Amino acid sequence: MACCGGCLCCQCCCNEGETRTPEELTILGETREDEDEILPRKDYESLDYDRCINEPFLEVLEGLDNKKARKYEAIKWILVFAIGVSTGLTGLFVDFFVRLFTQLKLKVVAQSVEECSENGCLALSLLELLSLNMMFVFISSVLVLIEPVAAGSGIPEIKSYLNGVKIPGIVRLRTFICKVTGVLFAVAGGLFVGKEGPMIHSGAIVGAGLPQFQSITFKKIRFHFPYFRSDRDKRDFVSAGAAAGVAAAFGAPIGGTLFSLEEGSSFWNQALTWKVLFCSMSATFTLNFFRSGINFNKWGSFQLPGLLNFGEFKCADGDKTCHLWTAVDLAFFVLMGVAGGLLGALFNCINKRLAKYRMRNVHPKARFIRVLESLLVCMVTTLVIFVASVTLGECRDLASANNNTSTQGSVNEEVNLTLRHFFCYNNTYNDMATLFFNPQEVAIHQLFHQNATFSPVTLSLFFVLYFFLSCWTYGVSVPSGLFVPSLLCGASLGRLVANVLKINFHMQIYSGTFALIGAAAFLGGVVRMTISLTVILIESTNEITYGLPIMITLMVAKWTGDFFNKGIYDIHIHLKGVPLLEWETEVEMDKLTASDIMEPNLTYVYPHTRIQSLVSILRTTVYHSFPVVTENRDNEKEFMKGNILISNNIKFKKSSVLTRAGEQRRRCQSMKSYPSSELRNVCDEQTAVEPAEEGQDILQQMLERRHVPYPNLYPDQSPSEEWTMEERFRPLTFHGLILRSQLVNLLIRGVCYAENQSSASQPRLSHSEMTEDYPRFPDIHDLDLALLNPRMIVDVTPYMNSCPYTVSPNTRVSQVFNLFRTMGLRHVPVVNAVGEIVGIITRHNLTHEFLVAKLRQHYITI
Amino acid sequence: MACCGGCLCCQCCCNEGETRTPEELTILGETREDEDEILPRKDYESLDYDRCINEPFLEVLEGLDNKKARKYEAIKWILVFAIGVSTGLTGLFVDFFVRLFTQLKLKVVAQSVEECSENGCLALSLLELLSLNMMFVFISSVLVLIEPVAAGSGIPEIKSYLNGVKIPGIVRLRTFICKVTGVLFAVAGGLFVGKEGPMIHSGAIVGAGLPQFQSITFKKIRFHFPYFRSDRDKRDFVSAGAAAGVAAAFGAPIGGTLFSLEEGSSFWNQALTWKVLFCSMSATFTLNFFRSGINFNKWGSFQLPGLLNFGEFKCADGDKTCHLWTAVDLAFFVLMGVAGGLLGALFNCINKRLAKYRMRNVHPKARFIRVLESLLVCMVTTLVIFVASVTLGECRDLASANNNTSTQGSVNEEVNLTLRHFFCYNNTYNDMATLFFNPQEVAIHQLFHQNATFSPVTLSLFFVLYFFLSCWTYGVSVPSGLFVPSLLCGASLGRLVANVLKINFHMQIYSGTFALIGAAAFLGGVVRMTISLTVILIESTNEITYGLPIMITLMVAKWTGDFFNKGIYDIHIHLKGVPLLEWETEVEMDKLTASDIMEPNLTYVYPHTRIQSLVSILRTTVYHSFPVVTENRDNEKEFMKGNILISNNIKFKKSSVLTRAGEQRRRCQSMKSYPSSELRNVCDEQTAVEPAEEGQDILQQMLERRHVPYPNLYPDQSPSEEWTMEERFRPLTFHGLILRSQLVNLLIRGVCYAENQSSASQPRLSHSEMTEDYPRFPDIHDLDLALLNPRMIVDVTPYMNSCPYTVSPNTRVSQVFNLFRTMGLRHVPVVNAVGEIVGIITRHNLTHEFLVAKLRQHYITI
Repeated sequence: MACCGGCLCCQCCCNEGETRTPEELTILGETREDEDEILPRKDYESLDYDRCINEPFLEVLEGLDNKKARKYEAIKWILVFAIGVSTGLTGLFVDFFVRLFTQLKLKVVAQSVEECSENGCLALSLLELLSLNMMFVFISSVLVLIEPVAAGSGIPEIKSYLNGVKIPGIVRLRTFICKVTGVLFAVAGGLFVGKEGPMIHSGAIVGAGLPQFQSITFKKIRFHFPYFRSDRDKRDFVSAGAAAGVAAAFGAPIGGTLFSLEEGSSFWNQALTWKVLFCSMSATFTLNFFRSGINFNKWGSFQLPGLLNFGEFKCADGDKTCHLWTAVDLAFFVLMGVAGGLLGALFNCINKRLAKYRMRNVHPKARFIRVLESLLVCMVTTLVIFVASVTLGECRDLASANNNTSTQGSVNEEVNLTLRHFFCYNNTYNDMATLFFNPQEVAIHQLFHQNATFSPVTLSLFFVLYFFLSCWTYGVSVPSGLFVPSLLCGASLGRLVANVLKINFHMQIYSGTFALIGAAAFLGGVVRMTISLTVILIESTNEITYGLPIMITLMVAKWTGDFFNKGIYDIHIHLKGVPLLEWETEVEMDKLTASDIMEPNLTYVYPHTRIQSLVSILRTTVYHSFPVVTENRDNEKEFMKGNILISNNIKFKKSSVLTRAGEQRRRCQSMKSYPSSELRNVCDEQTAVEPAEEGQDILQQMLERRHVPYPNLYPDQSPSEEWTMEERFRPLTFHGLILRSQLVNLLIRGVCYAENQSSASQPRLSHSEMTEDYPRFPDIHDLDLALLNPRMIVDVTPYMNSCPYTVSPNTRVSQVFNLFRTMGLRHVPVVNAVGEIVGIITRHNLTHEFLVAKLRQHYITI
Repeated sequence: MACCGGCLCCQCCCNEGETRTPEELTILGETREDEDEILPRKDYESLDYDRCINEPFLEVLEGLDNKKARKYEAIKWILVFAIGVSTGLTGLFVDFFVRLFTQLKLKVVAQSVEECSENGCLALSLLELLSLNMMFVFISSVLVLIEPVAAGSGIPEIKSYLNGVKIPGIVRLRTFICKVTGVLFAVAGGLFVGKEGPMIHSGAIVGAGLPQFQSITFKKIRFHFPYFRSDRDKRDFVSAGAAAGVAAAFGAPIGGTLFSLEEGSSFWNQALTWKVLFCSMSATFTLNFFRSGINFNKWGSFQLPGLLNFGEFKCADGDKTCHLWTAVDLAFFVLMGVAGGLLGALFNCINKRLAKYRMRNVHPKARFIRVLESLLVCMVTTLVIFVASVTLGECRDLASANNNTSTQGSVNEEVNLTLRHFFCYNNTYNDMATLFFNPQEVAIHQLFHQNATFSPVTLSLFFVLYFFLSCWTYGVSVPSGLFVPSLLCGASLGRLVANVLKINFHMQIYSGTFALIGAAAFLGGVVRMTISLTVILIESTNEITYGLPIMITLMVAKWTGDFFNKGIYDIHIHLKGVPLLEWETEVEMDKLTASDIMEPNLTYVYPHTRIQSLVSILRTTVYHSFPVVTENRDNEKEFMKGNILISNNIKFKKSSVLTRAGEQRRRCQSMKSYPSSELRNVCDEQTAVEPAEEGQDILQQMLERRHVPYPNLYPDQSPSEEWTMEERFRPLTFHGLILRSQLVNLLIRGVCYAENQSSASQPRLSHSEMTEDYPRFPDIHDLDLALLNPRMIVDVTPYMNSCPYTVSPNTRVSQVFNLFRTMGLRHVPVVNAVGEIVGIITRHNLTHEFLVAKLRQHYITI
């Protein structure tokens, strides 16, 4: 069991590796690629979206009325608004400085080049560019060294978090700072990376952190704000934050909402969705407000669209023959979708191999190696940009560009201003330089709206260079988004198609649409998102009529790509070994039942346990949750059952005047109070004095009769590793689940009672005391054992979750999966028809790999 | 129990009414308004989104591999596409004929009026208009007589259906025909009704009906297509259809998707959502394709936006000071939201009273009374339109209108063509007639884009008249939507505000925006939809920058309105007595547990029951589901438990060479097979010959040992109404649920075995035989008892749902509610810690009214 080390694994992750027989491993081995085996796999903890209903929680509940609930709701709205505004401001910050640095850099270099073009001192210009870029990338890379999880786009991590997996450090303030500053310098440093992914991650961190009013990075930030200290609330706020991030990055509030639903929420909750949309809207319009003010000095006009905006696609007013797209074009869009899917799959494949190579050869080495890699990528990128622009660009006629543009009506003054003239004179411009020596967003605009014909050679070269460089870049140790590079890649391809169709086949088409569809196809082929991506692209174009072509293209691209591999984010999640749950299980999995996939080796806790047993359980196992059980031995059962049955019968006879309904209600109540009031006294040697209730005197006698202690019930006999097989198979009635963190908390706060006292003397913890240390609960190994009296007894019943959702052993896997995923659970106890716990199912037992392995076993068995 | 008559009520609806003591009724009475009591309440059946995992299902499952699953998936995509296209075509049909009839009518009448204005023969024009309108409305009303559920907008019904309530006849082909034709004539008849709601309903019917390939209305339509014969699949298709309806009506595919999610899907399923979006897109673009072709002869251009399109909001190109909206305007928007909420609440209040009046005084009478009411409404509406136009309109300067328009740049040639000149000469137009004597969509366009100043008096009058007339109209016996009338009402109000601000306060505002926000505010105040409405409006304006103001307005309108009453659809659902489940329970409800709200009076079925008992149970109760139980009497328990324990122990001792994992697996399997293999033999006098398995010989002996029949287990002793209290309280181990329809099916198909035979001799039904009669299963009362041998025994275990989701008695209400709503369940058995069933929870036990009543009881008890 010590194998797990620092061990954040869910219940049963560990056993798997140990208890597997060689035969089983052979079976399992078939399903894995060999290379996957040698990758490091980390174990992750699960988030719990279900509420733990225990006594402290019920106390809080008793104090709640609808008025307080409304106040609580109002606080949520305010926080959601604050998250939106903060995310918007973050976006503003990044955008402002990226613009500033890029413009400064390009100005210096472009000037130098234009001058040089006459004097022939290109080396100097290159050196200038190189030094600036490498400086920026160095800063970015060092920031990632400080906080390694800030690397990459962050979407895989957020996707995992929203799926219900806790990844350490992912929503910390330090990560936020490193990510935001890092992405700024990475983009300014001319790397082929976008700022969209990191902005989504930043938004999610804002969402996670802001409502906590405390920080682990900066201990001084700690206000008293004891709300929302639960996985459930935190995950809701992270959804909102991630949506706000998308909204800020793309100016797509609806797309953002759908993104966080698609990736995160397993169930559709109207109230939550409404808040998420509000949060996205706040982010979008905060950004627009400030950008309109700062960039155009039009405060309060909200006129600017989002950061990544595709401009206006529009036919000239007079042009009656012009269509944005027609039914015929749809056929080409489908073909482009196929191409996008294939290229995306290739991209993902190459990137996966690179990532594996990095994990094996770069990550184990000293950290500064990663910085060196970043600098290398930066150097190569800069050289490519420079050399390609200078040597491979074609000089195109500026007049024709302008002319075309004005007739087509999609006049975009800014676009024309950004044409680059590198070594092109007499009203011509260098088309390669125009694409490379501009911010990426401008280049996308060029491809979408500039009717100047980029030469096919330039477009092809641009695509190839960009494809491989951005593929190499995604994964180096800088914060790096993928959206914009993919869009740019795809747009150049789409534009190429448009050029060919227009010039070689003389078709009446709108080039911008083809560029857009190309961008969608490639992006779809790489990331394989569906609804949210469709909506994001529609919102970015601000043109609802593009709905159908974008959707069809994305659909085709996804289907084509899925034929070969998974989306890039899923690949990276898989490489990290995160136990992500898909949307549904495959149909075949339904041949398995809960009992096939559950973990049958459980460590139990009794309702009343001695501290020494608890400590030994906690120190020798790594499970996060322990079922609370009583043994079903005959004497105990007689006693427990008899107790209730007799009390019922007595009541029944005594109160024959009661109505039938009242009688039934009473029966239900006795059933209900079973765990709480009965269990509490199971192990007490001294009888607790029950509040004398009318007609319960005979029940009282029954309770008093059991003064003889039942030795096999005694708390010391807590189940342990040394149990014999027979002991393990004893039927155990299930009463609830208690978490490791809760047990440690009880021990630390001295919640226990002495052997000769009643359990009523045990101190009680309030809900806020139980959740005070959220999200980082103390570890059992930090506990000073000298402070504990090992003979004291802990009554866990008030703190356990007495009614988790359970399944029966022959429930089909798809049902278990739906319950688990939809309700956002962490543990599902498997309870048989007579109330005995036979196993437990966690996230790990539902991952695709595990199910596939079990299915193979199943086929072998039958 | 006979009280329920034809009775479609869920388990326990009936008991409630009967078993309540007078005290309880007093308590309950406080929560209800007195007037609600006298309204007729109907009981509805619930849909089941959960799959019933029984042996026939498992057989199907065994035959399924991933290839077949893919085929199945492909069929779904094709069907979804077909649903989209059909819905689009339906929309096209309605739109085409509405246009045709309206244009014809208006042409005739307008011509007649223009002529008359010179000759003074207005009465004749009025008569022409009146006769045309009344003819159209008469047709529409007669169609509704044929199929009464075709009345109204259909959104309440679809909302209920998607929520999981089956409303008879709501998705039938006859309803479709009546609704589509009816709405066409209602709109053409000049009533203040929209065609949007009915189109959503039509889409939903297409979704429900098309994948079934059979019709109940037309018996001849019946292809062999045995897929999707379940509530689950049907509900998915209805979601898609409803979304397609919205998409066709508003040209808002994303809004449609969100609509069906908001109203319907309790959980977010990516695959489903993606299909729904595809369906919406298909509908939108089918419509656009044909409209572009038919109306503009531009086949294949897809240029036209949706049916209800708000035109383009745009500042003139040169105008730098013009803003669509600014930060300052937001404050007015909030105020307008408040006003919209108040007016909406007033609208709903009046309409509720009207609806109640109708239910009491109109509906019980002869049906033709309803037709008379429709005709009366039509007459009054026509008179008002005519008189108001002729006498109350102001003559405004046409030049100024044109002039303004051209400077503002929102040139809409069509809009100008639709100005009406009633008695206004010399380049002037009649503003009232312009609003009244145009199709509603054109009037909305006028208010949004026509910069000609409608006079404030006209706008106010128009609002008041429209408000009351549309309020009266919604609820008469014609298919009638509410969207367009509400939009028109609100737009006139918004335009009024704009006029006041512009003229009296000289503010620089864009009138169209104010009209739009007014429309949103009023519509939001009436229907109280949130996300979907926001998105629908954004999509209709095709302007993402309106996101924030629309959202804020809708939010404020909803909050204001919710202060007074519910949304109009919810009001009508409530009046119909549909047990709709809200999104969440109130916080206070968590003071209740499952045992507080469950129905404890259950009628049980044994695994093996004689036909005579089954028939008597089915004929004397109205429950839709029966728990399958075994009694926990001591001898039985010993036998059952002992059986398994002994067999386990034996296996354990015999096969000590097995690995631990293998042993545990075996144990799980014996647990798992508990209900299916053990139960089957509980009542057999003859031992079934078990397939001899290695090491099971001792188990075999154990099985053979129980040849003595246990009299109290014998099937004849099935529980019945005559049970004594003590018998009712016997603990009963829960094994599964069997539906009424399944039992009836078993009886009809003669699934039973003779007393002296083994249960293995019972015929087996396949999955398709079990579902063949979906959705209308035969009734027990149609069964010819003479054909049955009452002494035969039915083994229900292969057909029961052996693993429904269950809850424990002390589960909190919110958890039960979430499970029920999210999983779309129909019955949740309440099972205590030792596996005994203590009650059952259905939809009825979770409705707001029921919970409130129980909470009061709870407060009184404590």
